[in-house]
Parts: sequence; structure tokens; C-alpha cells
Amino acid sequence: MAERLQRRRGYREGLGGEMLAEFLGTFVLILLGCASVAVAIVGLSGSGRQADAFGPANWLIIAFGWGFAVVFGVYVAGGISGAHINPAVTLAFAVRRAFPWAKVGPYMLAQLVGAFVAAALVNAVYNWAINAFNVKAGLARDQSLDTFAIFATFPAKYFDGSWWGPLLDQIVGTAVLVLLIFALIDTRNTAPAANLGPFLIGMVVLTIGVTFGPNAGYAINPARDFGPRLWTFVAGWGDIALPGTYQWFSNYFWIPIVGPLVGGVIGAVVYDLFIGHVVAARTAPPEPGRTTEEPPRDTDR
Amino acid sequence: MAERLQRRRGYREGLGGEMLAEFLGTFVLILLGCASVAVAIVGLSGSGRQADAFGPANWLIIAFGWGFAVVFGVYVAGGISGAHINPAVTLAFAVRRAFPWAKVGPYMLAQLVGAFVAAALVNAVYNWAINAFNVKAGLARDQSLDTFAIFATFPAKYFDGSWWGPLLDQIVGTAVLVLLIFALIDTRNTAPAANLGPFLIGMVVLTIGVTFGPNAGYAINPARDFGPRLWTFVAGWGDIALPGTYQWFSNYFWIPIVGPLVGGVIGAVVYDLFIGHVVAARTAPPEPGRTTEEPPRDTDR
Amino acid sequence: MAERLQRRRGYREGLGGEMLAEFLGTFVLILLGCASVAVAIVGLSGSGRQADAFGPANWLIIAFGWGFAVVFGVYVAGGISGAHINPAVTLAFAVRRAFPWAKVGPYMLAQLVGAFVAAALVNAVYNWAINAFNVKAGLARDQSLDTFAIFATFPAKYFDGSWWGPLLDQIVGTAVLVLLIFALIDTRNTAPAANLGPFLIGMVVLTIGVTFGPNAGYAINPARDFGPRLWTFVAGWGDIALPGTYQWFSNYFWIPIVGPLVGGVIGAVVYDLFIGHVVAARTAPPEPGRTTEEPPRDTDR
Amino acid sequence: MAERLQRRRGYREGLGGEMLAEFLGTFVLILLGCASVAVAIVGLSGSGRQADAFGPANWLIIAFGWGFAVVFGVYVAGGISGAHINPAVTLAFAVRRAFPWAKVGPYMLAQLVGAFVAAALVNAVYNWAINAFNVKAGLARDQSLDTFAIFATFPAKYFDGSWWGPLLDQIVGTAVLVLLIFALIDTRNTAPAANLGPFLIGMVVLTIGVTFGPNAGYAINPARDFGPRLWTFVAGWGDIALPGTYQWFSNYFWIPIVGPLVGGVIGAVVYDLFIGHVVAARTAPPEPGRTTEEPPRDTDR
Repeated sequence: MAERLQRRRGYREGLGGEMLAEFLGTFVLILLGCASVAVAIVGLSGSGRQADAFGPANWLIIAFGWGFAVVFGVYVAGGISGAHINPAVTLAFAVRRAFPWAKVGPYMLAQLVGAFVAAALVNAVYNWAINAFNVKAGLARDQSLDTFAIFATFPAKYFDGSWWGPLLDQIVGTAVLVLLIFALIDTRNTAPAANLGPFLIGMVVLTIGVTFGPNAGYAINPARDFGPRLWTFVAGWGDIALPGTYQWFSNYFWIPIVGPLVGGVIGAVVYDLFIGHVVAARTAPPEPGRTTEEPPRDTDR
Repeated sequence: MAERLQRRRGYREGLGGEMLAEFLGTFVLILLGCASVAVAIVGLSGSGRQADAFGPANWLIIAFGWGFAVVFGVYVAGGISGAHINPAVTLAFAVRRAFPWAKVGPYMLAQLVGAFVAAALVNAVYNWAINAFNVKAGLARDQSLDTFAIFATFPAKYFDGSWWGPLLDQIVGTAVLVLLIFALIDTRNTAPAANLGPFLIGMVVLTIGVTFGPNAGYAINPARDFGPRLWTFVAGWGDIALPGTYQWFSNYFWIPIVGPLVGGVIGAVVYDLFIGHVVAARTAPPEPGRTTEEPPRDTDR
Repeated sequence: MAERLQRRRGYREGLGGEMLAEFLGTFVLILLGCASVAVAIVGLSGSGRQADAFGPANWLIIAFGWGFAVVFGVYVAGGISGAHINPAVTLAFAVRRAFPWAKVGPYMLAQLVGAFVAAALVNAVYNWAINAFNVKAGLARDQSLDTFAIFATFPAKYFDGSWWGPLLDQIVGTAVLVLLIFALIDTRNTAPAANLGPFLIGMVVLTIGVTFGPNAGYAINPARDFGPRLWTFVAGWGDIALPGTYQWFSNYFWIPIVGPLVGGVIGAVVYDLFIGHVVAARTAPPEPGRTTEEPPRDTDR
Repeated sequence: MAERLQRRRGYREGLGGEMLAEFLGTFVLILLGCASVAVAIVGLSGSGRQADAFGPANWLIIAFGWGFAVVFGVYVAGGISGAHINPAVTLAFAVRRAFPWAKVGPYMLAQLVGAFVAAALVNAVYNWAINAFNVKAGLARDQSLDTFAIFATFPAKYFDGSWWGPLLDQIVGTAVLVLLIFALIDTRNTAPAANLGPFLIGMVVLTIGVTFGPNAGYAINPARDFGPRLWTFVAGWGDIALPGTYQWFSNYFWIPIVGPLVGGVIGAVVYDLFIGHVVAARTAPPEPGRTTEEPPRDTDR
């Protein structure tokens, strides 16, 4: 097999290999992330209806689950594709970091497919638990927002049908994500070394989980929401999945797509305005005939 | 845009750029930190009145939220301003580490403004949740200490009106903070390398949260408390915000300003007395005509 | 003693030393891991019947316990044996990373013996707590699935006797484990440096705990389950231990052996297909007469 | 002041400076550690009688508190004294790592004094909370095991008066501690670099907290228990403090002294027998006329 693969080497060296890496990285992200929600909702004793499942101790399980899902998704794909594993990150890189626009579509496709396949595997492993939960709740699958919540996101009741509330939440959350990713990979700033960037990028997502998560499930990644959402539509969750219509909301599906794409670009612009251009100016050679007093730079802080 | 910014380069290379960095670093700190309290009080199912919201699992959410808020605030600003993001740290640096006194005021101003703006954004995102919470509790905004607690701090009931209790708490907490920051950035000691200092400095704040937090909300940072407090005053929380008067306390606002400023200097002095002067003596060249037996130094412990 | 050991040097330099390391590494893994379950089930106030013991806060204790048990098991044995401490990892290395087949049996034996001895020590320390728990529950030891759960694993009730459910869970969980280990040690990819691989490998297991753990106790390691299971059989848990028969399942014992061995190889193959061959092609010298455009490789992401 | 200290340089370069470092390191350890128990018992809303205070979410607070207390105690003192901050570690170093016996007494004294002073400061900060708690419970201070538990340790009820149970627990827990410290600082093994050893050593203590903690409060450090115990005796907790006599136990005080001292030496011996002598043999030059096949050594695993 090694020989056969060796013959395909040209393919694997180019965009094809990067798409495989984005696929597998996003697959790992969604497999671990969605499974952590499954633990909270249908896995643990004491789990139950969504109202109870999202208490603080379960929320910590979910926050650690998604946080480390990102850590390991990035470690898997980092060396080949840069491990975007998120269309909002890919778009922000294209807009602000000269990532080639020609690769944006293929990266996003690979991410979406990876997320879809991972959701199918989470469903396969948790099928017994999901069915037992729905039997106990006396609900058909397409009536069960609780089990849909394992896979994709929905807004909190307190938004009371407002689409601006969860959209703002997704914009802010993804802006924070991309702003901090840009800080953590900027070697002119205080970027962690020893290849520990992926660890800290995952901790960003853990942090967004415990700071903005309950508003709308912190998708902050169009593939993370839409890939599993497509799976749940195929697998019988009906209108709850697509177009995302239930008791207190209608047609939710577009918000975790548009919000993250917009928010990611905002986060990238904010980083560059406040920090990027400043570190660039500081590390650039001084203009001729001009004296600069070098400001102190604590790289170890 | 890059060209236009390039033309402003002189500005961005100097104090202006550092103030932008302190602004953005403190903005990230407060945005994430206050939002984590919002999760505990109005975000999660099972959240409720302050008496219940500060149970141990919610407290872990808050401790992780503020801890990583510091981590990422420091990573954002570290390379440009040194990432004080706390007037008590700025003062301690001025007193003990030759940070220029002329920059103390501008740094503190940037920190305060960053905290104020971040509080406004937290309010914007959590507005629906806050209003739903107050409606359910049957309280007007200026009667709701619970929702005020998302933004700024207040002392525990058991202090029973004593100002010395929370003041002592703020002095001790900030002394620990600055003592440990000084240890973590002292390359003559065992400072973490690979640019992981910001991670561990954030873990200091996580730790203070689970060790001194419940006494008075562990502001340990005048900007962290007073910036959001100003916002809540503007946004309708009334006397609870300023001067900080409610059922069991009057005029609280000055304690999380004075306590941290005093405590930070104490922590800095303690570090230098017990450790700083010793490592300085050890790493200095021996006096002529004097034999020193070099003591073992386990830098990897 | 040092002299006597020096004389046995030949022994210690070869496979014997590696077996000692695998023994001690697996011993540390099981001692800490099983003890964390003991904390949740019989140690803490508020612990109780298995139905209650596996609530979310206790589950975090177990997840941190097993996660760091792996961290420290790997740090103990890493420098000598490579710290497999898991027969599924040893098999995957033999299949995909040229680990000598002649060492596979000895490594697995050392791992199994280490696990057995560690279980005996956990039992010795927690004997008082276990007995008090069973007295209170009015159960003889061989009727107590609750206390058996301290040592070895069992499937969730919702599998309803299906052997395919927990077997699939063990295959998927161990595939994830080995896939991520292969990513984390692949220096052509983004492997963490500064000897922090063991920390992140432990965090993989923490993550699997909060993502797949409740299905079947995340053995994902034949020695982790079968070693303590043998101990419990010797120590009086009877049929619950071997062959693993209780209220809702019969003959469970083989599933946490076969599942991990199969899953580990799958994880290794998936890593190599999607990532390993691609990084190999990228880092190999180009074929003569062929131009390659070097793709960007963000090693710090 | 800098000049005056400079004149005392000779003092600070020698054992005196090391004692200051051990004092401050242990002070930080106990200040943060005991305060985290105060949070769980008297600090948080929902805290209460000891039976409830040690539920799993509170236990996580305590485990993180003590874990990071060690992290930062070691970072403070590491560069000067090696940061033993534990008489059991000092003894184990003297027995197995050629730490000078002449320094053993002074180190232990500095550790004990640091622990005593830190307990006094925890008491000062938490005095209001402790008194309010005891008033509510209707207990005098010398009847309140609950508030004593903030400072020093006591055995679980299920030991039913047996001294062998908690003694075994202390021996095993401290053996694990020292074994893992020896692994984490052994540069011939897989010791973490980048000065992250202190972080991982603290995580060892977090881990012991969630694996053996509930048995007897995981003192695993004679100074950690006896220093605060002395303080509580002085401050009015009476027989509960010394000799450690209450409802279900008598004269407990000696167990968290003797157990850790014995266990630490056992852990050191076990490390050297299983690992230390093997890595020593492997890294030593081969004997003349003898061929060694170099075994693979995965330093990055």
C-alpha cells in the first residue's frame, strides 16, 4: 500500500493533501465535540431534558469537550493544511493573511464533509442512548430538540424569537475566536512556541464556551453547525434540523453560517488595526535618517 | 489601508501603540471575564438568584472564564505593551521594575477605557438574558444586584458591612497576583519559557478565583471593577453601581480600587525582599577576592 | 545496592528494563485512574449508588483522574520504553511503526501485570471505604456492580444487552486515541516539543472520557480493563468480574480487549492514510526533473 | 533599601537565601491551598456542613486550588532552593539525590514556619466567614471540625478509628508524589523542558487530590498539615487541632507527619529501582569490549 500511495504523491503534495487534512481535522473536531454534548444530554446518569442537561457541571463537560476537540483537530491537520477546520477562519485568512482565494472553496468543502461524516459516526455510536432517551421522553425523533442539540445549535429561549440576538452572539464569539487565533500565531507578538499554539487555540474555544456558549450554542464555525445539521436532516430530525424551526424560533439555520463568516473577518480586522500594524511597524527597519527609541518588549510575558 | 496606517507609523511605534494594546488586552479580559459571570447568573439553565448562581460548579465556570480571559488578554497585548492590563500591575512595575512613571497614567487610562467598552459589549450581547432574568425576578434593573454582579464586584454578606474585610481580601489577593507575576517573568528564577508565561499568569487568576474569590469577587484590578461599574451606572443600575450601596453595604466602589493598588506594591516588595535580591546576588559576579561556593540551581524544577 | 544493580546492567539495558518501565508506567496509570473512580463512588461525601455517582461533577473528577493518570504514566516510562502502557498502542506500533513483533508479547505482559498489581493496591487503600459502602447498600461484594466499577468497566444500560454497541464504542474510542497519539508524536506534523507530548496524550484520554466515556467506561486499553478485572475476580467480585455477567449483560469481559486492539490499528491506518503519507511525501526530496511549489506549512499553528 | 540588602549579600547567597525561598514557597502553597478549602466550606453560597461541602464540584475547586498552589509555590522558590516546600521531598532528596543532610533541618524549619504564617493569614482573611459559619451552625470554634478542615486534615469516617487506613493512604499518596517528581525532573528520562516542570508537579498534586484525597485530606506533606495545625491550636480549635481528637478518631496529628516521610522515601526508591538505574545504565558509556545495541528512545513521547 505504501508503494501505491507513493505513486499518488503528486496529488498528496498539493491541494488534495490539504483537503484530506482539513477533512480529518474537522472530522476529529466534530466527532469529539458533538460526542461531549451527547455525554451531557443522553450519556451520563442524571442527564435529562435539555433544561436540566445544560446545568453548570454538564456545561463544563461540554466546554472541555469542544475545547480539546479543537486542540486535537488542529494537531492532526496543522502540519499539512494549517488546520483552519472552520470556514470562518479560512475566510478571515483569505481576507487578511493572503491565503489564496482559489483554495477557499475546496477548504470549506472539505471541512463541511468532515463535519457531516463525523456527525454520522457520533449518531452511530450514540444511537442506543438517543433512542432510549426519546422513548423515555415519549417523543419521536423529529420532535426532540434535546437530541438534536447533540449535533447542531439553537438559540436560548430568552431571545424570544429575535434573530438579531443570536446573530450578534455569533458575530462577537467568532470575532473573539479569530482575533485570538491571530494573536496566538503572530510570531512578532507573544506567540507560544514549542508547537503549543494548538493547545492554546483550543483553550480559546473552551473559553468562548464558558463565556458566550449558552446564548446560541457557540457554533462560531459554519461547518461545525451546518455539517451535523445536514446529517440530522437526513437522519430524521425534520424541521428542527432544516430550516431550523421549533417552538420559539423559525428558520434558524442561516445564523450560525452568516454570523461566524462576518465575525471572523471583524476579528481579523480588529487584530490588525490594534496590534498587527503596530508590531509590523515596530519590527520593520527604521526609515533612513530617523532615530527610533526601541520600546521594551517582554516576549516572555 | 495598509499604506495609510504605514504613514501613521511614528504614532504606532510609541506610547500610542502601547495604549492601543493595553486597550485591546483589557477589552479582551473584561469581555471574556464578565461574560463568564453572565453565563453563571443569567445564561445557563439552572442559573438563578445570586445565592444559587455562585454554587461550586458555576464558580468553576467563572474561575475558568476569568483565568483564560487573562491568558488571552496577555497574549493579545504582550508583544507591544507588556500586557499589564491592570493598573495595580502598572503601579507595581513603576515602583519596583523601573517602568516609566510618565506612562503610568496613559496605561491606566487605556485599561479603564478598554474595560468600559467591553462591559458595554457584554451588556449588548446579554441584554435579552438580563432582561428576561429581571422580569422573572420581578425586579427593576436598579434593584438587581444579581445582574449587576455580571459586571462588577460586591462583598460577601458575611462581612456584615465591614470595609476592612473586603479591603484586606483585595490587598492579599492582589499581593499574591503581583508576587506570582514577578516570579513568573523573572528569568533569573524559574520563569516558564516558550512564551508560556501568559498561560501561567492566567492560571494565577484562576487560582485566586478558587482561593479568595467568594469574599469580594476578586477584582484584584481597579480597571476590571471600575470600568464595568461606570458602564452599569450609565446603563441604569443606579446606586448599586455607584457609589456601590445595597442591602448590606454602602459606598463600596473605592475598595476594589485602593485594595489592589496597595496590594500590588506589597506583592512586588515581598517578591524582591525574599527572592529578587537573592537571585540578583547569586547571578551577580562575585566580589573580588571572595570565594563563592555556587549553590545548586534546579532550573528545570 | 547501587553496586549490585550496576552488576545487572546488561539486563537493565535491554528488554528487561523496558518491561520494568512498562510495568511501572501502567502501574501508575491504573493506580491513579482506578483511584479516581473510587473517589467518585465511595470516597466523597455525596457519593452513592452508581446511578448517582456518575453525575457530571463526579464525571469530571474521573476524567481528570484518568487523563492525568496517563500523563504521569507516560512521563514515568517515556524515556525507557516509549511508554505504550496499553496493548492496543503496542499492537498499533507493531503494525504501522516498525515496533519489533518480538517485543509485543513481553510489553503486553508487563502492562497486564502492572495493571493487576495497581488494582490490588487501590483495593488495599480503599478497602475501608468499599466495605462501608457495601454494608450501607446491604450488598455482598459479589453483588456490588457499584464497587466493581472502581476497577473495571461495564456497558451502559441503554445498550440493553447489545454487544455491538459497546464494541463499536471501544473501537471508535481507541481509534481516536491512537490516531491522536500518532499525530502528537509525528515530528513531520505539529508535534508538541519541550517534552510536552505526554501532557497532551493524557489530555486525549481526558477528552475521550468526556466524549465517549459513559457508553462503556472508556477502557480503550485491554490491560486497563483486564488487569483490574482479574484482580476483582481474585478478590471476590465473582461473575461480575469474570466473565462479566450482571443484570443487563452477559460475558462482557472480551469487549474491552477486542475492541481496543481492533480500534487501535484502525486509528493508526487512518492517520497514515490521511496524514502520514502526505507529510512523508512533502518532507521527502523531490523526484529528479520535477518542480515542486513548496506549500506553506504553519508549524506553529 | 537595595543598598542595605546588597550589603547582606553573603547571607543571601547561602543557606539563608534558600531558607527564605523555602519559607515563601511554602507560604504561597499553604495560603492558596488552605484558602481553596475555605472557599468550599465557608466561602461559596451553597457551602455548608462538611458532609455537604465535600461534594464533587467543591472537590474540584479544592483539587485545582491545591494543585495550582503547588505550581506557584514551586515557581516562586524554584530558582533558589529547588522548591522542595515539603519535608517529605527534602528527606527523599537527602536519601536518594545527595541533598546535603546538613540542610535538611533548616529546610524543614523554613517550610514549617512558612506554613504556620500562611495559615494565620488565611484565618485573618476568612475570619468573618468562619465566624458566620460557626454562629449559623451553633458551634464554638473548638467544636467545629468543619472550620478546622480549612487548615489541616482529618481521616474519613469510614476508617472507623483505624490508624492504619489513613497511614497507608499517606504513605501511598506521598510515594506517588515523590516517584512522579523524580520522573519529572529526571533529564535522562522525559522531563518537561521550557521550565514547565513546576506546572506538571502541581498537576501531580491536583491528581492525587482526585484520586486519594477524600481518604485523609491528602496532606502528603508534614509541613502542610502540621504548620496550619499548630496555628489552629493557637487560635482556639483545641483538641481537634492537637492532638487531633474528635468524634471518630483520637490523636491523629502524627499520621500526616510519619506517613509522608516514609512514603516519600519509598517513592524515591521505587523510581530508582524501576527507572533511575535503567536510564543511568543506558546513558552511561558502554563497558570496554562490549557491544550495545542502542534501544530507541522517544524523548518526545
